[in-house]
This record gives sequence, C-alpha cells and structure tokens, in this order.
Amino acid sequence: MRRHNLALVLGEVVAAEPVSRAALAARTGLTRGTVSSLVEELLDAGLLDELAAERSGPGRPANPLQLNRSGPAGLGVEIEVDHISACVVDLTGSVRATARIPSAHRDAHPGVAVGRAVALARTVRAEAGLEVVGAAVAVPGVVAADGVVVRAPNLPQWSGAEIGPLFDGLPVTTANEADLAALAELWFAAGPPDALYVSGGVGVGAGIVLGGQLFRGVGGRAGELGHVVVDPDGPNCRCGGHGCLEQVAGQEALLRAGRTTDLDALPPHVLDGAARALGVALAGAVNLLDVPVVVLGGIYPRLGEPLRAAVHDRLCERVVHRSDVEVRLSALGPGGALRAAAASVVRERLRRP
Amino acid sequence: MRRHNLALVLGEVVAAEPVSRAALAARTGLTRGTVSSLVEELLDAGLLDELAAERSGPGRPANPLQLNRSGPAGLGVEIEVDHISACVVDLTGSVRATARIPSAHRDAHPGVAVGRAVALARTVRAEAGLEVVGAAVAVPGVVAADGVVVRAPNLPQWSGAEIGPLFDGLPVTTANEADLAALAELWFAAGPPDALYVSGGVGVGAGIVLGGQLFRGVGGRAGELGHVVVDPDGPNCRCGGHGCLEQVAGQEALLRAGRTTDLDALPPHVLDGAARALGVALAGAVNLLDVPVVVLGGIYPRLGEPLRAAVHDRLCERVVHRSDVEVRLSALGPGGALRAAAASVVRERLRRP
Repeated sequence: MRRHNLALVLGEVVAAEPVSRAALAARTGLTRGTVSSLVEELLDAGLLDELAAERSGPGRPANPLQLNRSGPAGLGVEIEVDHISACVVDLTGSVRATARIPSAHRDAHPGVAVGRAVALARTVRAEAGLEVVGAAVAVPGVVAADGVVVRAPNLPQWSGAEIGPLFDGLPVTTANEADLAALAELWFAAGPPDALYVSGGVGVGAGIVLGGQLFRGVGGRAGELGHVVVDPDGPNCRCGGHGCLEQVAGQEALLRAGRTTDLDALPPHVLDGAARALGVALAGAVNLLDVPVVVLGGIYPRLGEPLRAAVHDRLCERVVHRSDVEVRLSALGPGGALRAAAASVVRERLRRP
Repeated sequence: MRRHNLALVLGEVVAAEPVSRAALAARTGLTRGTVSSLVEELLDAGLLDELAAERSGPGRPANPLQLNRSGPAGLGVEIEVDHISACVVDLTGSVRATARIPSAHRDAHPGVAVGRAVALARTVRAEAGLEVVGAAVAVPGVVAADGVVVRAPNLPQWSGAEIGPLFDGLPVTTANEADLAALAELWFAAGPPDALYVSGGVGVGAGIVLGGQLFRGVGGRAGELGHVVVDPDGPNCRCGGHGCLEQVAGQEALLRAGRTTDLDALPPHVLDGAARALGVALAGAVNLLDVPVVVLGGIYPRLGEPLRAAVHDRLCERVVHRSDVEVRLSALGPGGALRAAAASVVRERLRRP
C-alpha cells in the first residue's frame, strides 16, 4: 500500500512538477500528513528534490518539489549493425550525456560489440556523473520475453545471445530496437495511441502500439515487418527467405540500388521502389491490425516528403477497410530508440520506487 | 449487484449443470437463501429449468437445475457470396434447427440476400419452435463496430449496408464471418488461446485470437488477410488491388486454376500454388503478431492434409522468430461461423440476464 502510494505521489510530481505538498495531497486524495511522510521517504531515496522555499504567508514555507535531476539515472545502449551508441538520462528523461561510434561487427561474436558498448557506456556515465541504476540495450533483432536474442538476421552470431551478464554487473534489459523506437514516439513526441511504427535501418523493424501500449505478442516477438514478403521472386535475405521487405527498403538495399554510399543521393526510382515495397508490406499490416496511423522512422525521415507521400499512396491503394491511413515521418530522428532505452530504466524506477 | 449475481449463478450452471441450489451456493459463495431467490427469478425468466426431484433424504427434495432447453434461443444467419444459411441454437448452444440454400447475389443489392435470409430464418425458427430473442448475421466483409458493413469486396453493393433494420424487428448484430469462425474454434473446439484463424471461401478472411479473446483492432476491422499481397504482379482483385491472397487461394481462384467446379478435383499443382501463397501471407501475419498456431478453416479442411503440410512448410521457411508454427485444420467444418453467430446471442443473454 505504501509502495503504491509512493508511486502515486511520484506520478503526480511527474505530471505537475514543480508541485507543493499541499497540491500533491489535493491531487492524490491522500491526507497532508501522509503526503509529507511519503515525500520524506522519496527525498531520502534521492528521487525528489526540494526547490528554494517560496514564502507565501505565515507558517512553514511551501517548498515546491520536483524530480531530482541528480538522482538515479538510466543508461541506454543501442547496438546496430554498423554502429554503437550510448546515453544517460536523468529521472526526467532528459539526456545528460550521449556518444556514438562506428563499429562494424556484423560477423563477429556478440562479445565484440558488447565489449565496445561497455567501454562507450563508461564514457557517457563518466560524463553524466550520475548514479546509473540500470541499463537497457536496443538490438536489431527478435528478443524473447526473458531478454535472450532469439535471432538477429543481420547479426548472425547473436542467436541465443544473452547480453545482460556481459554488462558490468548493472541490471540490464534487452529489447528490440523498433519496439523502443515506437515507445520513443509515444513518450517524447506525443505519438498516436494506435499506430504502426516502422524503423528503417540496415534491417527494417516495426513496433506496434495499440491503445497507448506496446503490443509485444505472445512471446514478445511481434512486429517483424522486415521479413514480410514483398516479392516472392525477390533477392535472398539473411533470414533464409527471399523477397523480404528489407531486401528492397532496408538501408543497404537502398544504397546498393542507388549505387551510392550516401542516402541523400538516392535517385527517385530507388525511392519509388522502396515506397512500393513499403506500401505492400504496410497495407498487409494495416489490413490485419486495423491501425489508423503509420509512423516512418529510422532512416526514412531523412528520405523526406517524397518518400512519405509515395508510401501513403501505395498503402492506401491496398487497404480495404479504411479510406485513409495517415503516414507520418517521425520527428525524433534515429536516436529515439536509444533515448527510450535509457528512459525505460528511470520510468520503471518511478513506477516502482 | 443482483444482476451481477444472476449472471454469476448462470455461469455456474453453465459450468456444472445439472447442479443443485446447495452446490450453487458453495460454488458462488452466496448464501443459500440468496441463491434460492436468484434461482426463482431465473426460473421465472425461463432461463433455468428444474429437473425431476432426487429425494436423497428427509425434507424438501433437491431438484437439480440446468439451462432451460426450451428457453430463449439465438438465431444465426450466414450470408455468403453463393449461399445463405441459418440456424437456431438453444441456451446451451446446441443447434436445434438449421438450413442452407444456394443463393447467387454477388452483384445484387443487399436487400435481395437479406430478403432470402429472413425467409430462411422463418423456416428454421418454425422448425426449432423456440422463442428467438435475437440474431447475429455473419457476412464476408469488413464490419465496423456499429454493425455497418464497411466493405465486402465480393459483394460490391454492400458498402455502407446496415442489415439489422431489415430483420423482422429482432435485435440483430452483424459480424465478420472469419471473426465468428475464430470464436467458433474457441467456443466449440477448445481452440488455442493465441491463434490466427483463416477462413477460406470465395474470399479469404482471418480472425485473430489473442489471450482467448477476439482481437478486433481499433475500428473492429482487423484480420483482412485476403487482401495481403502475395504477388505484386498478380491478378487484379475485386478490392481494387492486385496479387491479393484470395486471387490465388480463394475458392473461385482455386477452381479457375484447376479448370474444375469441384474442390475435391483440384490437381496438386493448384494446391501447391495455394499453399505457397498462404505461406507467404501467413508468415507475414505471424511475423507481425507472434502467434504460435494457425487454424485453417472454411474450405481448407476439405483440401486435407497435403494442403496443411505444404502450408506449414512454406510458413515455417519464412517465420523469423519461431522455429515452429503449428498449422491445424479446423475440425468444425464450414458451419462454425453460423453456429457461433447464433451462440453469440444466447451467450450475451446468459452474460446479462
């Protein structure tokens, strides 16, 4: 009960900070005495911070409360096929330090990338100077509910890998990159409560958001959009199939088709091909799930409005039950999943103080 | 509260009939007096029936109770592209009368098929001789949450149709045929709690069951598997797209490809083509939803084990996150949706007596 009330008070601080004890009592329906006692405990735990007193009348001053910017922090790590990034967020979810390094480790044992990630994490932790209480790692692969990487077609040696134990003794969770990117859209960009979030990179993943919650599927492995078939006679894919979406609309496929190493230099016919493939795969997903919004993230926002408009047209041609499906470009950029990973740590701490 | 307790008592009768008042008190935790009073009300409402007394000792005999087989009944109607069927089930969900007529009404106004359905319903109602308290109509199309048929690609004049008001003044709900077939699998065949149920007919639909519940999507329109693209260069579809699953694996496409009018006379290469297409579409759906079981219903069980095995192999080739997905043939046959429609009426009555 007390635990529940601690979380209740914290939730109201998140919603309304800076906020007085009296306002917290009014918002929670708890007595002022109870609130004061809970607040003391949260101050002691370093979760809350007391601002300078505002003397508004006689008696004890009403020190407003806010989340402690020097309190427990979360570490986020993203391991992609060709780079690694890390960041630390404080209790408010603000990024306090971030870094990114190129790292080619496609055919390496997971230990190689994780070793580099641990070193990079040490750098950002030192820069942030906060007490990191946990970490979450975003990976471009299917992650089971227990955190084991079931399969990462673009990191073939990662099947069955457990990342947590490799991480300096911190409590670590592992999650699919697209799922975290979808949460980023919800948490930091007021994203729609029912949407399919598509994350374009070397692979193409999706996070499904239904009723404001991430839909994970029975085994936590939902959203593998990149291996939806868009052309049964198409090129071989690293997953063992062929004609998968990411063989047409993934980053490497796009650069190969455009004979360039620069995403900004893709000719229109390459974008058209990607839009057609995304339209086919997304229409199938929308027909199945009945979601009104698709958000294109990862590398796709960089390809701009022409890609968005073409995907929208291709998609709507093939959706049978809605006259329109909104297609948006994510405003968060490719760092969304990383920030959501770090934020997931502090959100959990605030939910269970 | 009394309403809640009435439903509670009825639920226990459903689970344990025939059952004594004393056993109901023990199972519900209500007092024997309360149970007796609730039972009186349910007997008066015609929902329960008292069996012959079993005199097991001195005092009042302990008449066991069961659902009233002569009580309120449900009417189910299924309107397909080439036939109409109707049935009446009693409170236990047992079919008490059923009938089916061929009816070609593809290009007709909905009133034509509904007129025939109303006449057929009169026949089965007369045969059953029960008091029908409501009806549910299964249609091969997308049905919005308010019962309006959003779109039925194989019944082009049905867009925007409301069937309820055409039905003799009975309270009528309208639902997607594949959704009802999925519920039939759950209710009458102890179907798995997480599964994709595929209903093959002229169209191909799907009902998605997650956690033992039908997943309907934001607008109640989820599960449109038939218009998932399996071949971007494939034949035109009535939905306006091309290369949709039902253009390869729907009943008419199969008969056309086999140059026959008999589903039992399809050559193996036609079944192979259907299995390949179903494998592509279902792998996409399983990759997105992460469900462990696919149930093939409608016309597919008639095509037998070779189709099932081929779909299983094609599907598993392309699923990235599970080493195996179980593919079953429905044991219910094509009448499942019809029976579930009728049963949905009495289940609702038992849930809200």
